[in-house]
Amino acid sequence: MTDNPVDSRTPLTLLGTGDMGTALARAWLAAGHPVTVWNRTASRAEALAAEGATVARTAAEAVAANRLVVACLLDDASVGEALDGADLTGRDLVNLTTGTPGQGRARAAWAEARGARFLDGGIMAVPPMIGVPESGGYVFYSGSPELFAEHRDTLAVPAGTRYVGADPGFAALHDVALLSAMNGMFAGVMHAFALIRPEDIAPKDFAPLLFGWLTAMAPAVHQTADQLESGDYTKGVVSNLAMQAAGIPTFLRTAEEQHVSPELLTPYLELMEKRVAQGHGDEDGTGMIELLKKEGSH
Amino acid sequence: MTDNPVDSRTPLTLLGTGDMGTALARAWLAAGHPVTVWNRTASRAEALAAEGATVARTAAEAVAANRLVVACLLDDASVGEALDGADLTGRDLVNLTTGTPGQGRARAAWAEARGARFLDGGIMAVPPMIGVPESGGYVFYSGSPELFAEHRDTLAVPAGTRYVGADPGFAALHDVALLSAMNGMFAGVMHAFALIRPEDIAPKDFAPLLFGWLTAMAPAVHQTADQLESGDYTKGVVSNLAMQAAGIPTFLRTAEEQHVSPELLTPYLELMEKRVAQGHGDEDGTGMIELLKKEGSH
Ligand SMILES: NC(=O)c1ccc[n+]([C@@H]2O[C@H](COP(=O)([O-])OP(=O)(O)OC[C@H]3O[C@@H](n4cnc5c(N)ncnc54)[C@H](OP(=O)(O)O)[C@@H]3O)[C@@H](O)[C@H]2O)c1
Ligand SMILES: NC(=O)c1ccc[n+]([C@@H]2O[C@H](COP(=O)([O-])OP(=O)(O)OC[C@H]3O[C@@H](n4cnc5c(N)ncnc54)[C@H](OP(=O)(O)O)[C@@H]3O)[C@@H](O)[C@H]2O)c1
Repeated sequence: MTDNPVDSRTPLTLLGTGDMGTALARAWLAAGHPVTVWNRTASRAEALAAEGATVARTAAEAVAANRLVVACLLDDASVGEALDGADLTGRDLVNLTTGTPGQGRARAAWAEARGARFLDGGIMAVPPMIGVPESGGYVFYSGSPELFAEHRDTLAVPAGTRYVGADPGFAALHDVALLSAMNGMFAGVMHAFALIRPEDIAPKDFAPLLFGWLTAMAPAVHQTADQLESGDYTKGVVSNLAMQAAGIPTFLRTAEEQHVSPELLTPYLELMEKRVAQGHGDEDGTGMIELLKKEGSH
Repeated sequence: MTDNPVDSRTPLTLLGTGDMGTALARAWLAAGHPVTVWNRTASRAEALAAEGATVARTAAEAVAANRLVVACLLDDASVGEALDGADLTGRDLVNLTTGTPGQGRARAAWAEARGARFLDGGIMAVPPMIGVPESGGYVFYSGSPELFAEHRDTLAVPAGTRYVGADPGFAALHDVALLSAMNGMFAGVMHAFALIRPEDIAPKDFAPLLFGWLTAMAPAVHQTADQLESGDYTKGVVSNLAMQAAGIPTFLRTAEEQHVSPELLTPYLELMEKRVAQGHGDEDGTGMIELLKKEGSH
């Protein structure tokens, strides 16, 4: 403890001051953390000097400055490049660069071989949500539980934290899984707006109906989870797949009538038909997951 | 007005006592409406006699019994078949059979040519939600505004009502559009669960994260509506398409690593790439709607 509480804030290094890195740096600076920044293109880091950051000339110098090192770069390859000449011995490396689970695992092994503890992160927020707790933005973390426990409070400064396991691939896996689900939802939303578009229906009148319906149907994920846990895909079915599949011509014909390409919907409708054809018309959607498994799966 | 309030409830005829028709009949009977039912397979209607319904032997006889006639049959063709020999003069026909906007419009013209007023409906509920106001289930209605105004209270008995316009195709259009969006969301959810499946991650721990994320992202439909109203697809963009498209390899590579077929995601990712390639990387998703428009569109 010290007389000046600001001095007790963990100092840290941030590699990469792009849109996201800059937002992270500002949140830590605003909370009184001493921050050393580095960016490949130096000019992009200098604005932060005026806000109290120390600008390092090289990544190696930035890494040497603090035990806690956060990387927020373009992609996994850029992390390898940036840290190529740096001494990671005794460092706590937190990688907030988006990647795949495999990249997270490989980067963890790479960092540990260089004497660092490693935590991978997946940011579930856009820059304007950083440092704004009410925004609901958060970061998935996975990897070293000790690193997370030790730096939890510091990591919680820019956004909420959700630690999802010691496997360093899990943060990226959760990140990509949630964004994939969101893309599916957005694809459906695009199709819906495309359908109403030729008509005299105001998008702003339609949007609340769409929002209400999607949020009313979203709890179905709990039913899916329940069926996956039990392995019984007929458990608690209210609208079975055979009945849903009977509606497929209505979806396709409506798209046709409204001059909308059905391309965003067809893969799901085809999967539904396939599952029913395999004799699973008494299930609801969950069993379709079996058809997504690729050869060579574990 | 009468001394017995039950006598003041509008009597009605219900054609079709399948799962949904039976639920509707029960709700009206429970609310004190005299109900005449007819079903092609008579045995399926007889259970309702014990609950107070009058069972008609033919559809024509059922139609003759009451001015208000509700049809809840398998599909549009079955409505035509069932009503083939019935005299619709002076009837108020409410068609709760799922169909396309075009079928709704054609059925309206058909009914009007036979001297009936017509209202088409799209049921946004499953049978257990009928007669349960807390369930949030409702029915889209479109077509004759006079018919709707006159029977609004009766129609509100089994489920909430949302009148969406005089165009008799609009109820089906809203219905199909919302279900299409839901299918997109469910496709994304399936892909997400498939990704985590090979790992030691409990579906019931993952489901709340998925639910939270989808409901947090669903308000984006308002931004989409706003951009469609203004015609400016760059308005208020926080995460532009170029940035989103840069993440495509991460989605595909993660699916590959997890041995999951990307088939449910690829059409959306391809559409995104196409829009960016056309020079619209500064927009967010809304502009993709332009690429769904088919030749011959109005
Ligand atoms: N922005 C978001 O909405 C958002 C949301 C969630 C997650 N993320 C993730 O956060 C990370 C950073 O995103 P951002 O929005 O800040 O991107 P950005 O604005 O494009 O910044 C990219 C950063 O990476 C650096 N970089 C690129 N290649 C490099 C290399 N080979 N060596 C060293 N540095 C390199 C850039 O340096 P230069 O300035 O020298 O080019 C810049 O600092 C990404 O992984 C992204 O997926 C972003
Ligand atoms: N169930 C739901 O979750 C749900 C949700 C929303 C909307 N809907 C819609 O509600 C409508 C009815 O669905 P449901 O669940 O009640 O289906 P269902 O249980 O399969 O019942 C179908 C009904 O249609 C009748 N029918 C079929 N072909 C006929 C024909 N050619 N002529 C006369 N009658 C015929 C059947 O008579 P028989 O008994 O003689 O076969 C039965 O009464 C459908 O349009 C459906 O899309 C259902």
